[in-house]
Amino acid sequence: MERVYNFAAGPACLPEEVLKKAQADFMVYGTSGMNVMEMSHRSKDFDDIIKSAEADLRTLMGIPDNYKVMFLQGGGSTQFAMVPMNLMQKGKAYYIKTGQWAKKAAAEGAKYLQAEVVASSEDKTFSYIPETNKDMFKDDADYVYICENNTIYGTHFSELPDTNGLPLVSDMSSCILSQKVDVTKYGLIFAGAQKNIGPAGVVIVIMREDLIRDDVPDFVPTMLKYKTHADAASLYNTPPTYAIYMAGLVFKHLIELGGVEAMEVINRRKAARLYDFLDNSKLFKPTVVGKDRSLMNVPFITGDKDLDAEFVATAKENGFVNIKGHRTVGGMRASIYNAMPEAGVDALIEFMAAFEKSHK
Amino acid sequence: MERVYNFAAGPACLPEEVLKKAQADFMVYGTSGMNVMEMSHRSKDFDDIIKSAEADLRTLMGIPDNYKVMFLQGGGSTQFAMVPMNLMQKGKAYYIKTGQWAKKAAAEGAKYLQAEVVASSEDKTFSYIPETNKDMFKDDADYVYICENNTIYGTHFSELPDTNGLPLVSDMSSCILSQKVDVTKYGLIFAGAQKNIGPAGVVIVIMREDLIRDDVPDFVPTMLKYKTHADAASLYNTPPTYAIYMAGLVFKHLIELGGVEAMEVINRRKAARLYDFLDNSKLFKPTVVGKDRSLMNVPFITGDKDLDAEFVATAKENGFVNIKGHRTVGGMRASIYNAMPEAGVDALIEFMAAFEKSHK
Repeated sequence: MERVYNFAAGPACLPEEVLKKAQADFMVYGTSGMNVMEMSHRSKDFDDIIKSAEADLRTLMGIPDNYKVMFLQGGGSTQFAMVPMNLMQKGKAYYIKTGQWAKKAAAEGAKYLQAEVVASSEDKTFSYIPETNKDMFKDDADYVYICENNTIYGTHFSELPDTNGLPLVSDMSSCILSQKVDVTKYGLIFAGAQKNIGPAGVVIVIMREDLIRDDVPDFVPTMLKYKTHADAASLYNTPPTYAIYMAGLVFKHLIELGGVEAMEVINRRKAARLYDFLDNSKLFKPTVVGKDRSLMNVPFITGDKDLDAEFVATAKENGFVNIKGHRTVGGMRASIYNAMPEAGVDALIEFMAAFEKSHK
Repeated sequence: MERVYNFAAGPACLPEEVLKKAQADFMVYGTSGMNVMEMSHRSKDFDDIIKSAEADLRTLMGIPDNYKVMFLQGGGSTQFAMVPMNLMQKGKAYYIKTGQWAKKAAAEGAKYLQAEVVASSEDKTFSYIPETNKDMFKDDADYVYICENNTIYGTHFSELPDTNGLPLVSDMSSCILSQKVDVTKYGLIFAGAQKNIGPAGVVIVIMREDLIRDDVPDFVPTMLKYKTHADAASLYNTPPTYAIYMAGLVFKHLIELGGVEAMEVINRRKAARLYDFLDNSKLFKPTVVGKDRSLMNVPFITGDKDLDAEFVATAKENGFVNIKGHRTVGGMRASIYNAMPEAGVDALIEFMAAFEKSHK
């Protein structure tokens, strides 16, 4: 069986070089005499793994010293609760509703504070990023929350909102490490690993130190306090060791390729080719237009449900898998994360062109 | 580099056959064209993986239909909060304090309810399981909590407490699947995977359906409600897919070996050999005596710290690794989970005998 081009939205494809390295070291990692999964999280070998992973991520993203990096569990969905539980002081936060995930985050936030939806693009199936301006954000709130790249709808904040000095919390699950960001503009960044980083089961939190507080409400579980993990360098309890190892391999691989700057060049090229094709196609139409287009998730439709289904099925037979769109958008979606090779995007475009030709 | 005998307390050794299978399928799993880590958790392939894992665990443990099985994140430490958050109604629970983990669980429980420590073995460094009787448990409480096998101290409940009808909650992290249990005696069982099941990053919860409630307090995060995960068959959000896959491989492997009954025979033989040696040694002494001995974790000392250190170092040089005891007990600890082959225990005993001879 050959490897396919996997356009899944997440969990998603991993760099083949990284998989080969992990496979080669599967029975015995280095001089440890064991697989990384079998290693004590308190061992010297694992200490090197987690510390290198953090150091490499700091290098890749240019994370300043006054930010902590944490490797946690529970995915973005647990962050939806941890963010308000740990940041609530004034008892209010602003949410920008750009999709299902931002909506879920706001709903979870509303359990703990007044989660004011200050802007939304729900009116047009979340196909754009709504405008905001700094006057919308008063100092009566603890933070402003965004989902920076919307996996389902294929939109991305091309510019960050001016939060008027409030800490910006960003769910970067589907865009982290895909293009350069200025970490100092954020109070807290989190990202589930299963798109641009590694296997599902680890979520990375990058948090400005002054926001990490001990005096959170009594009902906050020890495991849901950022301070617990920040103080213990993510080793308060057994972390998801293998997922952290794989993430570390991906970080090293990205550094070898030239870092986030180099990835951004490649990602812009990949996305431009696909959007160009879509903009010029007579059969396929992109669902997002203009500056809000994501470099990572590209939804498109034919406008004919049966034809969409035929395309998805034929694509699968030809080794382009997981290209079906989310049910709320319909049609197709090609997720082209860092690990999707340029050749995969080119091959997809070629296949789409041939499909278009045979369906005139 | 050769594989070593790894006596780590957890994460711990995995069956070599399972590792080899996972390595062989690493680049392409079945007909999927990808690694399991790259697979959508909503895909048919992963659906088969998680459903088979659950079915095999049900077979292995004889889990009745009125119990739900969940694959969650956050380890045992998150369970310490989820248990009281989800079970509190009367506002009280009984804890039996048999070690660090039971102590931590009681401390976390005390954030949410009156966590009454009804019996403790802290007076003798947790080297025994304290007696209880059913009159200690009144119907003013929501549950009775035990840590069934104490990894650090090497003790194990040879008999379950009579809870006088209260639901019994058991942390089985370090004994699950090592010997036969009657699931109907429990209200809730949980176990971090990283000892007898698979990689760190997944915790298994087995819960009687009538205890799974929707009307938990408002402050309980959606991700910390058992009902969220029970209703969604562990797919409310992206689960730790690779850890679940590895757990599933271990379950299949155990079934091939003859199930838990067969493992119990082997585990009793392994432990008996090691305890027999310790009971007859003039150099090494076991720290637990009598019926409370664990089949999984065997702590022992020489009584001389320098000699302990020399033994640990020499053992390591000879391929017996992670045999140093926990700092609160000192000395050594051999964790001999399901995946530790009998040959590993025999080789350790032989090595200890030689060490003893050369240190008369």
